[in-house]
Amino acid sequence: MESPQPSAPLFDYLLHLADNAAILCQRLGAWCGHGPVLEQDIALTNIALDQVGLARMLYQYAGQVEGKGRGEDDLAYLRDSWDFKNCLLVEMPNGDWGQTILRQFIYDAWALPLYDVLSKSTDENLSAIAIRTAKEVRYHYRFSSEWVIRLGDGTNESRQRMVDALQFLWPFVNELTQPAPYEQALMASGVIPDLSGVVASFKESLRVVFEEATLPVPDFDTWSQTGGKTGVHTEHLGYILAEMQHLQRTYPQAAW
Amino acid sequence: MESPQPSAPLFDYLLHLADNAAILCQRLGAWCGHGPVLEQDIALTNIALDQVGLARMLYQYAGQVEGKGRGEDDLAYLRDSWDFKNCLLVEMPNGDWGQTILRQFIYDAWALPLYDVLSKSTDENLSAIAIRTAKEVRYHYRFSSEWVIRLGDGTNESRQRMVDALQFLWPFVNELTQPAPYEQALMASGVIPDLSGVVASFKESLRVVFEEATLPVPDFDTWSQTGGKTGVHTEHLGYILAEMQHLQRTYPQAAW
Repeated sequence: MESPQPSAPLFDYLLHLADNAAILCQRLGAWCGHGPVLEQDIALTNIALDQVGLARMLYQYAGQVEGKGRGEDDLAYLRDSWDFKNCLLVEMPNGDWGQTILRQFIYDAWALPLYDVLSKSTDENLSAIAIRTAKEVRYHYRFSSEWVIRLGDGTNESRQRMVDALQFLWPFVNELTQPAPYEQALMASGVIPDLSGVVASFKESLRVVFEEATLPVPDFDTWSQTGGKTGVHTEHLGYILAEMQHLQRTYPQAAW
Repeated sequence: MESPQPSAPLFDYLLHLADNAAILCQRLGAWCGHGPVLEQDIALTNIALDQVGLARMLYQYAGQVEGKGRGEDDLAYLRDSWDFKNCLLVEMPNGDWGQTILRQFIYDAWALPLYDVLSKSTDENLSAIAIRTAKEVRYHYRFSSEWVIRLGDGTNESRQRMVDALQFLWPFVNELTQPAPYEQALMASGVIPDLSGVVASFKESLRVVFEEATLPVPDFDTWSQTGGKTGVHTEHLGYILAEMQHLQRTYPQAAW
């Protein structure tokens, strides 16, 4: 094990963004071949693939920023759970289709304004990744928000499932809006723009879509779980990593 | 990866017995803290612990027989799914309590006469392990058979769940009664006694307990899945090994 050492805020932030995408992808991948209908199965799998692409770009760049020779595989497959900086939301279980969709919508509602803002980063590489990602997130957001409305304002059963999913996921939502030390440092140094506009846009998206879906709009000011962004995770992450990393752990340096 | 080579029948058989215990233990361990009531939670966890003890003895002895310096950890944690020789039954999902109990009972109904017979093995080490194990299996069998009767001859719901579990598990039962090449070789050389008496006793136990549980006694002569005993497994085993081996794969040579 490496000895702990202070990391540069940009490296930490790139890992945070990459880990969000990688862990969400791992969760979404479990739906492949199990979606309710083929078209939606493929749609969700395509979103998962976009997350892989994003995670790879971010891990590759994070490895460059770190400057210790670690590549994308090292960062994705050879770190342990306390090194992961993803928000807790993306490691939450898939549950049923409604819970997966709601988790996706909440994530997309955050990612949509976030990657728009990050496209104005003074870091050119991060900006380039963000410009490309922002285009993809628009499609994800359209897909997931339409599904939230369809299920929330649907049958009694679909609505009840969405209400249950919202209650289950809500304690893990507000972590997104609370800047980690590395986010604060990057805002202070001007590398990334202030994220308060992202927070406002995020809350507004949730309000509008939940209202159209006839779902209760939860209170943002209640207590929420935090810790994922600084490496303190739920028990779920260990199981996710056990599966996600098994091949690389079993056959180190294996390549296609 | 090691290149494949013919293994001695005794080594293969010890691995088969050890893998049965190790994989069943991994499955049972998932119930720890989740049993329907505390006493039964502890009972099942105790059975899991007995399986660990058995697996360790068998892996240790298998390592000696192989003579290549591999110890219990190497054999449990550093082989891949195609190296595992457990029967398919033990890798089947836990399902609900009834399905776990039924899987356990079927396994115990096989292990009970098996370890009695193996205590007469001409191999002294195997015989000593079997004598010790046979005593433990009596308790396991009493526990699981009583539960099968209680649930089968219980409420409409408990009975229906047992009928469903029986239907789900049955295709994986008959593999137990079909000797693998290494079992045939050991019987032929007289190292282990003929197993036909074990098969008869096994079938009789299932018949008697299923009848008392008012469960349909399935036909043994129908088609059944096979392959586990020679390394051809269901997709479940890969996920089991990912979790079971994660620590050792991540921190090779880690010791307590």
